[in-house]
Amino acid sequence: MPFVRISLMRGKSAEYRTAISEAVHQAMVETIDVPQDDRFQVFHEREPDGLIYDPTYLGIERSNDLLILQITMRRGRTVEQKKAFYRRLVSLLAENPGVRSQDVFVNLIENSEADWSFGNGEAQRAEV
Amino acid sequence: MPFVRISLMRGKSAEYRTAISEAVHQAMVETIDVPQDDRFQVFHEREPDGLIYDPTYLGIERSNDLLILQITMRRGRTVEQKKAFYRRLVSLLAENPGVRSQDVFVNLIENSEADWSFGNGEAQRAEV
Amino acid sequence: MPFVRISLMRGKSAEYRTAISEAVHQAMVETIDVPQDDRFQVFHEREPDGLIYDPTYLGIERSNDLLILQITMRRGRTVEQKKAFYRRLVSLLAENPGVRSQDVFVNLIENSEADWSFGNGEAQRAEV
Repeated sequence: MPFVRISLMRGKSAEYRTAISEAVHQAMVETIDVPQDDRFQVFHEREPDGLIYDPTYLGIERSNDLLILQITMRRGRTVEQKKAFYRRLVSLLAENPGVRSQDVFVNLIENSEADWSFGNGEAQRAEV
Repeated sequence: MPFVRISLMRGKSAEYRTAISEAVHQAMVETIDVPQDDRFQVFHEREPDGLIYDPTYLGIERSNDLLILQITMRRGRTVEQKKAFYRRLVSLLAENPGVRSQDVFVNLIENSEADWSFGNGEAQRAEV
Repeated sequence: MPFVRISLMRGKSAEYRTAISEAVHQAMVETIDVPQDDRFQVFHEREPDGLIYDPTYLGIERSNDLLILQITMRRGRTVEQKKAFYRRLVSLLAENPGVRSQDVFVNLIENSEADWSFGNGEAQRAEV
């Protein structure tokens, strides 16, 4: 049910982006109850002047390896689950492909069960 | 008032994308009270490794013709209206340009009247 | 905390886009309590057939210089603050790089404090 947009600088290898895709998904599976096969992601690759970031906001030293993740998912995760997700996410991204934890920026957007159709013109998660 | 992001694989013709644009808009006009001339859409075309999807999640067989629609609109549509929208959407897309219903993935994001400015620096839908 | 997506037609200069980036951010700083160094933006440049807009909806004459801004931020701004933001935004964009106020389309998406991680795997704005 989550839909993930991943923005980063252009120039990384396909392997690097695949590792990001897998780390992001795995962190969601482990911490916020996302099914293993519920993976839908779009990458947004940008030239440096198309991805603007503050290099030190909140005292965090960001680099051009910055990832900006925007994740849309149904309402219901607790604050503790979200915190667990952020922690696991940076841990998995540090392992592979090796993203510094300072370079992982996330924002979440929540909606409702009826706001999803996975195909066939049906709202699979809406109550009948 | 809706704003629509349409993600799909690169390589389709301009005619194909125009037909998608029109089907998506027409389905909204018919089912969720969107004015005929309230059309604002952005296409996101991707190489195969930039649009990640599970090919069978929930038993739905998806192909590289997948469309991922993310629609932002003001709060207020009922669950029944949303279901009617999904049904009409896949029907119109099947007619033209001929998208399989399995390849239509949708998520909705809702906001408030004051969250829209259509130009001129005004919040045209906010209560005075 | 805001995250801003800016969609526009391809073909503008880097200076033009930088001026947009700065005007959008400055308007947020002045009207909706955004810190000066809390700037995170992604540009989406499009060919004409990738950015669809109605040229006269609500009687506003739009051109190919249209900007579509989608801003995600935490809940809490009042309707008055949002209106002040829209007004200041078109004023600053008119000054530099010289965007007509009719060509500034905005939508806002609101979320919660726990929906943000600015790096380090932490939810910096969530209550402890």
